[in-house]
Amino acid sequence: MVVKGFSTSAVAAGIRYADRLDLGLIFSDTPAVTAGVFTTNQVKAAPVLLDIERLKQGRAQAVLVNSGCANACTGEQGMENARMTSALVSQALGIQDNLVQIASTGVIGEQLNMPAFTASIDKLVAGLSPEGFDQVARAIMTTDTVPKTSFRTIELGGKEVNIAGMAKGSGMIMPNMATMLAFVLTDVQISFPELHTSLVSGVKRTFNRITVDGDTSTNDMVLVMANGRAGNPWIDEDAPQKDRQVFTDALEEVLRELALMIVADGEGATKTITVRVCGAKENEDAERLARTVANSNLVKTAFFGEDANWGRIIAAMGRSGVRFNPDHVDIAFNDVLIVKNGQSLGKEAEAAASRVLKEKHFAVCIDLKDGAGCEEIYTCDFSMDYVKINANYRT
Amino acid sequence: MVVKGFSTSAVAAGIRYADRLDLGLIFSDTPAVTAGVFTTNQVKAAPVLLDIERLKQGRAQAVLVNSGCANACTGEQGMENARMTSALVSQALGIQDNLVQIASTGVIGEQLNMPAFTASIDKLVAGLSPEGFDQVARAIMTTDTVPKTSFRTIELGGKEVNIAGMAKGSGMIMPNMATMLAFVLTDVQISFPELHTSLVSGVKRTFNRITVDGDTSTNDMVLVMANGRAGNPWIDEDAPQKDRQVFTDALEEVLRELALMIVADGEGATKTITVRVCGAKENEDAERLARTVANSNLVKTAFFGEDANWGRIIAAMGRSGVRFNPDHVDIAFNDVLIVKNGQSLGKEAEAAASRVLKEKHFAVCIDLKDGAGCEEIYTCDFSMDYVKINANYRT
Repeated sequence: MVVKGFSTSAVAAGIRYADRLDLGLIFSDTPAVTAGVFTTNQVKAAPVLLDIERLKQGRAQAVLVNSGCANACTGEQGMENARMTSALVSQALGIQDNLVQIASTGVIGEQLNMPAFTASIDKLVAGLSPEGFDQVARAIMTTDTVPKTSFRTIELGGKEVNIAGMAKGSGMIMPNMATMLAFVLTDVQISFPELHTSLVSGVKRTFNRITVDGDTSTNDMVLVMANGRAGNPWIDEDAPQKDRQVFTDALEEVLRELALMIVADGEGATKTITVRVCGAKENEDAERLARTVANSNLVKTAFFGEDANWGRIIAAMGRSGVRFNPDHVDIAFNDVLIVKNGQSLGKEAEAAASRVLKEKHFAVCIDLKDGAGCEEIYTCDFSMDYVKINANYRT
Repeated sequence: MVVKGFSTSAVAAGIRYADRLDLGLIFSDTPAVTAGVFTTNQVKAAPVLLDIERLKQGRAQAVLVNSGCANACTGEQGMENARMTSALVSQALGIQDNLVQIASTGVIGEQLNMPAFTASIDKLVAGLSPEGFDQVARAIMTTDTVPKTSFRTIELGGKEVNIAGMAKGSGMIMPNMATMLAFVLTDVQISFPELHTSLVSGVKRTFNRITVDGDTSTNDMVLVMANGRAGNPWIDEDAPQKDRQVFTDALEEVLRELALMIVADGEGATKTITVRVCGAKENEDAERLARTVANSNLVKTAFFGEDANWGRIIAAMGRSGVRFNPDHVDIAFNDVLIVKNGQSLGKEAEAAASRVLKEKHFAVCIDLKDGAGCEEIYTCDFSMDYVKINANYRT
């Protein structure tokens, strides 16, 4: 799929490993309205700090992204290197330097391999093409086993509008107001406030609802660039509510698809699980309960073992800090109810639930019967391979 | 070691498995001053609820403890069964029923195997002996690989005072105001307020500073019984501060020894790690930072891999919710400094740190250089065996 006015490119620059795509470039023919959300981790990587500063103008024209090195905890030298990589790109493209966004992912605490950047920028720029999207999605992978992309086409005022998203992420995943790296390109014509609002609401309901291991990265970011080349009537505060909703919904679909791909590709994951808590006093309570269950190692190893071990679920809920009445709790796996009012429905119900756990995806549905608060968190199971990957891989 | 006036006994009752010690009894010739701390998990097992109610009197004479079944999430039937096991014991011993404390550990959500209790109580009581302590420590094991006991003898007013502690715990370990099961017997003569104060302060600095997997159990409890048979001058509010301190210190040593044994026997653990945070604004900040690091799966799998991966440590700190300046952070493994002011000291320092990680025990020392707050959390590494154990074992 082609998003009008965007071209992309990727090369194997040898930043950390040889012969592996590790440097990507996204370029818009014209400056694009651009919104971003970034990690809330107090320890922010150099590119995150630079991007946040530059995005105050709400515009960007290029994104340079590398894997292999996070450029986090690298001090003044790291900031200087970030600025230098940006300068390499802006000079090669002949655009304003502050219209370049940069992103890094990989090992924390090491300086960027600057010669690899210097030697590769010309080739990277020369390779720009409307068809390079999947290559960039590959270049940003670290422990990811598959590239993650999502596309939507919608119609606004008789014009075809395209949205293309990519993401990377597999471990150190519990985004908080942001996620691992994700880039969304669209040719929609939209104002910055509208784009920003759509992004923030979309991220809140997608990337901020996933967890692989409860760890929040120093480099999380989601960028959306909208260059207006679709020529649709402007989406701004005066636009019809219907049109604004069509775009917001399509963007949220792309974000959710990417977020769920990250969970499915969670380090060592064999299954994905939706933890849904309803009947809470407030939505916030429901989210906190669902998140505590979704992050419990004991719950996740039981899922890996395909054991409908609801005792661990209710024990995790009990330490969440949210007040609820244990004697009102119902728990179902998909539509198989196994706990009613805090107590087991017996061996047969558990056997039926264990069959649900053999599925690649299932939902844990918890009802507190105490209010209207309801939220979902998306997670994966916890296998021996998670440990194997993380005992050997340098984040 | 014999604590005067106490006798103990254990049998293989077949509560869940055959031919395995799973039922223990502790008995004091006379009612003992008894203090307890219990899980703060909102979901409390039936024996916990019964014990809390009974301990308001500050006295107990017997403890009946079983493994194999937690009697948690078992509703009215669970409470009824708890009361019935207590009645079996009080009748067989000829003591007041409300002087019996009961404790259970094992699978959540199943009812107690009552026939196993009924058939075993006579044998259990008949087996009471001053030498049965180690047998009870075995009977309370679940995924524990070793029994955990600790002993101290002190002198108070010319009298020998004995303290004997036992504990069980391996998974679902992040005690909060309590721990897994621990029982401490002492012949000290002490008032309830003094005993309670010593226990609470000791638990806060020992069991509440350990974590294996961040999960808090529904059945945690620590009981200390003091029957006064040592004949020492009363430890009460009028006692010399020195004597009170001698007892409090000895009790804390027993509690710490047991707590560290739990961490060392953490499910799948190959090493134990002290995470020490100093230079925080407040002690509470230091504790929260240390706990976040000590619970991070990414940090713990790196320890298993013997990788001095400080990037994961600082990333975990950054999501702890505690404000600190990343550019002031120093990190050392034992006495090997590898991060100074938030940045790596280079490959040589990391190689030296990696040698420290090959030890069975080491400390991660984090200095924020921002105040006098300092706390330690004790944890273990995270191996593939943790997943193997918990994918197959029913908590």
